[in-house]
Amino acid sequence: MTTYQLVTKARSLALLTFLMFCCLLASAQNDKSPPPNFVIIFADDLGYGDLGTFGHPSIQTPNLDRMATEGQKWTNFYVAASVCTPSRAALLTGRLPVRNGMCSNKSRVLFPNSVNGLPTEEITLAEQLKQAGYATAAIGKWHLGHKPEFLPTSQGFDYYYGIPYSNDMDKAVKKDYWADGDDIPFQDYNVPLMRDTEIVERPADQTTITKRYTEETVKFIKEHKSEPFFVYLAHNLPHIPLFASKDFKGKSKRGLYGDVIEEIDYGVGEVIKVLEEEGLAENTIVVFTSDNGPWLPFKTHGGSAGLLRAGKGTTWEGGMRVPTIFWSPSRVTPAVVSDLGSTMDLFTTFSAMAQVAMPNDRLMDGVDLSPTLLKGEESPRKHILYYRGPEVYAARLGEYKLHYITQGEYGMFGGKEVHETPILYHLGHDPSEQFDIAAEHPEVIEEINQLVKEHQSTLVKGKDQLAERE
Amino acid sequence: MTTYQLVTKARSLALLTFLMFCCLLASAQNDKSPPPNFVIIFADDLGYGDLGTFGHPSIQTPNLDRMATEGQKWTNFYVAASVCTPSRAALLTGRLPVRNGMCSNKSRVLFPNSVNGLPTEEITLAEQLKQAGYATAAIGKWHLGHKPEFLPTSQGFDYYYGIPYSNDMDKAVKKDYWADGDDIPFQDYNVPLMRDTEIVERPADQTTITKRYTEETVKFIKEHKSEPFFVYLAHNLPHIPLFASKDFKGKSKRGLYGDVIEEIDYGVGEVIKVLEEEGLAENTIVVFTSDNGPWLPFKTHGGSAGLLRAGKGTTWEGGMRVPTIFWSPSRVTPAVVSDLGSTMDLFTTFSAMAQVAMPNDRLMDGVDLSPTLLKGEESPRKHILYYRGPEVYAARLGEYKLHYITQGEYGMFGGKEVHETPILYHLGHDPSEQFDIAAEHPEVIEEINQLVKEHQSTLVKGKDQLAERE
Repeated sequence: MTTYQLVTKARSLALLTFLMFCCLLASAQNDKSPPPNFVIIFADDLGYGDLGTFGHPSIQTPNLDRMATEGQKWTNFYVAASVCTPSRAALLTGRLPVRNGMCSNKSRVLFPNSVNGLPTEEITLAEQLKQAGYATAAIGKWHLGHKPEFLPTSQGFDYYYGIPYSNDMDKAVKKDYWADGDDIPFQDYNVPLMRDTEIVERPADQTTITKRYTEETVKFIKEHKSEPFFVYLAHNLPHIPLFASKDFKGKSKRGLYGDVIEEIDYGVGEVIKVLEEEGLAENTIVVFTSDNGPWLPFKTHGGSAGLLRAGKGTTWEGGMRVPTIFWSPSRVTPAVVSDLGSTMDLFTTFSAMAQVAMPNDRLMDGVDLSPTLLKGEESPRKHILYYRGPEVYAARLGEYKLHYITQGEYGMFGGKEVHETPILYHLGHDPSEQFDIAAEHPEVIEEINQLVKEHQSTLVKGKDQLAERE
Repeated sequence: MTTYQLVTKARSLALLTFLMFCCLLASAQNDKSPPPNFVIIFADDLGYGDLGTFGHPSIQTPNLDRMATEGQKWTNFYVAASVCTPSRAALLTGRLPVRNGMCSNKSRVLFPNSVNGLPTEEITLAEQLKQAGYATAAIGKWHLGHKPEFLPTSQGFDYYYGIPYSNDMDKAVKKDYWADGDDIPFQDYNVPLMRDTEIVERPADQTTITKRYTEETVKFIKEHKSEPFFVYLAHNLPHIPLFASKDFKGKSKRGLYGDVIEEIDYGVGEVIKVLEEEGLAENTIVVFTSDNGPWLPFKTHGGSAGLLRAGKGTTWEGGMRVPTIFWSPSRVTPAVVSDLGSTMDLFTTFSAMAQVAMPNDRLMDGVDLSPTLLKGEESPRKHILYYRGPEVYAARLGEYKLHYITQGEYGMFGGKEVHETPILYHLGHDPSEQFDIAAEHPEVIEEINQLVKEHQSTLVKGKDQLAERE
């Protein structure tokens, strides 16, 4: 070996050693990298078919479409109930509403004269993440109890800005919904807007509310960029009454409903933008979803479930399957995921990502979706229970869904029917729930019956929190 | 000025001159750049809701989704008829079928015992492009006349490989469609497979037919890469009976129907791949669309119109609006286009791009979509006529659609109803055609009536080519 060769070899070795050192350093840094931030953007009554990437022909949602292309679009993602209050309780606790009384035979949701709210002994995702030092904010609609002890600031959120229940409650005038067409005076609804526990505006000016929720979110992210944060941004629209700001009203081909969605989509873009500008995008998981299906009796002011059957209030797919997108560049593997997921899985998944141990003193209903989100593996979730109030109406195992009871709502889709022979659909082959195949698959029915029986055998129903009114 | 400064200035000037020269050269080359290639991929009975990017939850179409993201996804794109033969005639001639007898009151499509075909005096898009020296191929289903004088090779195509009519014709056995479930023997249909004017296989092995169409397309592109080319790739699936090759059968969560679409999507990917590999992508416009809506009586073997009403055979949106994607990197401006378009516009648009003058001895029904495709401008198309056979059933002007006559088909969606007061829908606000607003908009009705009257005043109906049978 010549001196030149020796020198070259020594140089190569030095370079190799340096590169290995860099790798080790990077991996060590990786282990010490801060826990990811979480932003949940939750729309109200947005239907499965209301986004561009979920097939809507006249609503333009470029920001959500982009998130779907860069991230994961989940096409079989569910809420735990087809109305507001129980759906929200399930997302924030990772538990079926029947376990903590956030569903009822007497009232489907909380009202301004309701006495109770989400029991404080429940652990919310905010409380869970606070264990790992997260800054937490709830921005938007709450609907889990409007009395001080039930408000977000009593449930693990450092900050709250929003309305405490639905935007159509506190109706101040007797009027047909369509009396003013698309120009509904926001004063017709005496809904309070709150900051933490104080009412700061009443009636809330709903024409600018979507915009303000977005601004509050952007501000919170900027203020907390140096610590891990969790923002629960729960828009109170497109729940009726519909309002859009001047910049959006009259812009969409879909009319006011489309204006509202396009303003929400714009807000999604603003959140993405601030995350990118602040260098937080790579370390933030953003998820967009909806609390239940479209509220169809409101005609063009209600959304669309696309090819799914029925809508809000029912246990048909249109009521409980919601358009869901996960985004985090460099973390979430781009894919269209047709495996099962549930809003209840967010609690488990985000706990795993933030390395916070799961509560061990109660039954949880979520699974950890990290393997799917981060590595594109099969979803660990294999079944869905379709509750209406405190009753199981249907259950899905893999691609099969078994309806024990079907029932319409809001004067649509028929009355309550208890099926002696349950109805079985293969949702993969038959996403619109049209072709009953119960007769051909007794073994599937048996398997699903077993699943439901096992679930019910361990179930302790929580005390009804929705029934009591002042 | 010092010598140094002078030299520097001279150098700068020389550099500037050189750069300007480069620009001029580039622009000159641009003017002389070869006319673009065109590939039309046409599916059969594929519904509006059957692609991932158009909202299907369990059919995976990554290649078409990618085309939609990189190119233009058209959400209000129409065919001229809701059944095979007239729809295909319209695409290839840029004219309404009523003008050339390719629709009839007596037969909706051509059959194996039909006497006629597309009149040879019609100018097909292939004949049109041959004027600019294009190599042309028709691969797949023809259905515009199976006698030699009507075959693709008599209508401007240099090459033909495919079946001359629908894949369910020449039924060889009396059997219920579902007799063999998903394992239909292809021998049950004695359909011929042709190369140019020769039958090369009978019955065509339909299990490998989608794959072979794709292979033929890839081969044709490779062989003609040094000249402008036009390929009309008209898959005969997902029209029933359904078949998928070994590589795809049983793979999709949507069952055999999904397998078929996923194999077509794979073929789309192969076409994109060869264009990229051969350096042709930048100079090729690829468009994907369908000949009409889903054939719904075939249950899980039929597709989905998504949120659109009804399906194949009707003048409801589900029958005539088709999922359409244009792709050409660096040419087609990425966008979701909710303006109007029609398969009849392809003739006009591609003629403009290839700089071939439009025929001036006949009425044409297409418009040039280039401004939208290439510059993202508003679509020049403002109306759609919904023909059933030789009759106008409905018309769309902007977002408004007026139904004069409605009629179901295949035992679905009711009988023929002539509406004394026509039904008016705003398709932007109400894409599912649910809320009649005729009473509120007499001026719109008047405007659409006028449009239809003007159209009919110049219309010369062609001699019926579909009625006569052997």
